Amino acid sequence: MTGIALSRRLGRTPYSDAVEAAGVSHLTVYNHTLLAAAFGDVAAEARHLRTAVQLWDVACQRHVRIRGPEADALVQWLTPRDLTGTGSHVCRYVPMVAADGGMLNDPVLHRCAPGDWTVSLADRDMELWIAGLAVGRDVEVFEADLHPLAVQGPLAREVVGPVLGDISGFGFFHAREVEFQGRSLWISRTGFSKQGGIEAYPDAEMARPLWDALMESGQTHGIRVGCPNLIERIEGGMLSCGNDFDRGNTPFECGLGRLCDGTHDYVGRAALEAAGPPRRMIRPVEIADEVPVCDRAWPVVRDGATVGRVTSAVWAPDRGVSVAIGMIDRDAWALGTRFHVWSQSGSHPAHVRDAFWT
Amino acid sequence: MTGIALSRRLGRTPYSDAVEAAGVSHLTVYNHTLLAAAFGDVAAEARHLRTAVQLWDVACQRHVRIRGPEADALVQWLTPRDLTGTGSHVCRYVPMVAADGGMLNDPVLHRCAPGDWTVSLADRDMELWIAGLAVGRDVEVFEADLHPLAVQGPLAREVVGPVLGDISGFGFFHAREVEFQGRSLWISRTGFSKQGGIEAYPDAEMARPLWDALMESGQTHGIRVGCPNLIERIEGGMLSCGNDFDRGNTPFECGLGRLCDGTHDYVGRAALEAAGPPRRMIRPVEIADEVPVCDRAWPVVRDGATVGRVTSAVWAPDRGVSVAIGMIDRDAWALGTRFHVWSQSGSHPAHVRDAFWT
Repeated sequence: MTGIALSRRLGRTPYSDAVEAAGVSHLTVYNHTLLAAAFGDVAAEARHLRTAVQLWDVACQRHVRIRGPEADALVQWLTPRDLTGTGSHVCRYVPMVAADGGMLNDPVLHRCAPGDWTVSLADRDMELWIAGLAVGRDVEVFEADLHPLAVQGPLAREVVGPVLGDISGFGFFHAREVEFQGRSLWISRTGFSKQGGIEAYPDAEMARPLWDALMESGQTHGIRVGCPNLIERIEGGMLSCGNDFDRGNTPFECGLGRLCDGTHDYVGRAALEAAGPPRRMIRPVEIADEVPVCDRAWPVVRDGATVGRVTSAVWAPDRGVSVAIGMIDRDAWALGTRFHVWSQSGSHPAHVRDAFWT
Repeated sequence: MTGIALSRRLGRTPYSDAVEAAGVSHLTVYNHTLLAAAFGDVAAEARHLRTAVQLWDVACQRHVRIRGPEADALVQWLTPRDLTGTGSHVCRYVPMVAADGGMLNDPVLHRCAPGDWTVSLADRDMELWIAGLAVGRDVEVFEADLHPLAVQGPLAREVVGPVLGDISGFGFFHAREVEFQGRSLWISRTGFSKQGGIEAYPDAEMARPLWDALMESGQTHGIRVGCPNLIERIEGGMLSCGNDFDRGNTPFECGLGRLCDGTHDYVGRAALEAAGPPRRMIRPVEIADEVPVCDRAWPVVRDGATVGRVTSAVWAPDRGVSVAIGMIDRDAWALGTRFHVWSQSGSHPAHVRDAFWT
């Protein structure tokens, strides 16, 4: 195992002490911040996530706040998705693209109030991009003092209820303000799993007390400290910015064409309109073998020709296959198409599935 | 030891296979790219770097290219440093600041030709910043296909000579074009150590052949695969963006006031002019004890009051002290001032030195 070289440049979060105490075995870096990737057995953690409840440090989701008279116009300019009619306390998953139509980020927008948004970022210093585009507009752009945590799993309601109030009937991708220790706290029905739950956005002062309160509430429900789970993420088809797509991909290639529904002016519009139908697209890929760590793009080869790449993959012992996400060329993306995936360990038989696993 | 969770999002370089084969023990992430931090014994590596020669994978230094009729004006707008008279084939270490005067980056500019620059970045997605500021200007901004490697150490000349030609008389912070395998290659007399040497900027195709040729040339000089060395870096007073300074610091606080010599218009000028004399500044700090890993800012305390923070520190066994870099308040920054540094392990007696160690 290669160690991670810790330094101040890789930021700790208000929860890092708790994550270490829980026995984190592997860390990654996301938005210059430490993010747990495993606590030992990823398959066992996936099972626990699907059947119980976990508390995650996702403070690496840095938040850019956009506020002011021209904030609504700027936010709409940042994405191909039509935000018309987005109410306050509503979240929107949006692609953000460069002038050439390439994917920069797939953040979750939170509309806090008219003219007041936060952008919950995937891995890239988007504050620089947004600040650059804001020049000359009557709008403030700054990094907010927010340190997200997530409660994920089928028992999330039971854990959250006693601490932050009942979340029954709290709609997916909606947000609300609740009270914690006498102060207002923003929470949303979001999270980087398919198991349900919430994310909460405390400031630095509130962060650790909230974590401790949720851990305490979760004791009778078998709560564990966890993290976004690679098996569950891939089975659920949740894309990871920088893994499954990059600057070289359009949102159409990412399967996000349905979110490019705006007729308004936005950065990258001319390029996306000129792009034509995608020549490759995200697909669920099932690999017969146990694969090594997917630390690079793996060529997908059929009849001696490269027809795509696998960008995330992991052995799923409970299924007896490796689950994967691939960017597959048009003539190989049809359901059932068989090919080989070339990892650093060699060649693995694989095929395109009709859908992700869950 | 906590492992690093590898994924495609943490980019490999053309040299990653060679770095792994050389026994890298610790990795960090820099500009979304893997960077070796240790190959076992950091003190032994420092000794070797000072007495022999090492080959480093520094491809994490991503390069933004700025080219076009308005490139010179844009580059000058990006930094407080007066670039007047910067010839072609000259490098400049420059602060880049935000509108509020806070440090964004401390890259090395390469002036390739009139109207044609590359920016060798410290850790931040500055392409987004520069692209944003370039909107409406007649200039191209894009990430260049360059994968820097470094040859560092007193025997660098002997290693480089047979491969890229004699570098005697090649001035510090100058660049030149040389030939490698029949193609043009940009090299510079730069590097993140005080031991001398060069950096070279091959494209993806040329990268690994160049690495192999330099390793081959270095065999008779005891060359080893290495990396920026924490002990040698701190002893040399080389600042690390994100460790020793961040958005909250002005260039004056970083000791870079001499580089804020421009009277031209630049981003952040109004803020820097209004800032007044710095209230804190970078200082070399000697700590009596062996300290733990400096993975967070350590408060510096004198007479019960916090008077600064230590941001990089490491035990230097050959000196019998820990060497450190601190951002120290004005009333405690004088030579010889004694205080205590509070790491996660407790309190350590320390004092301000008159200069860095080398």
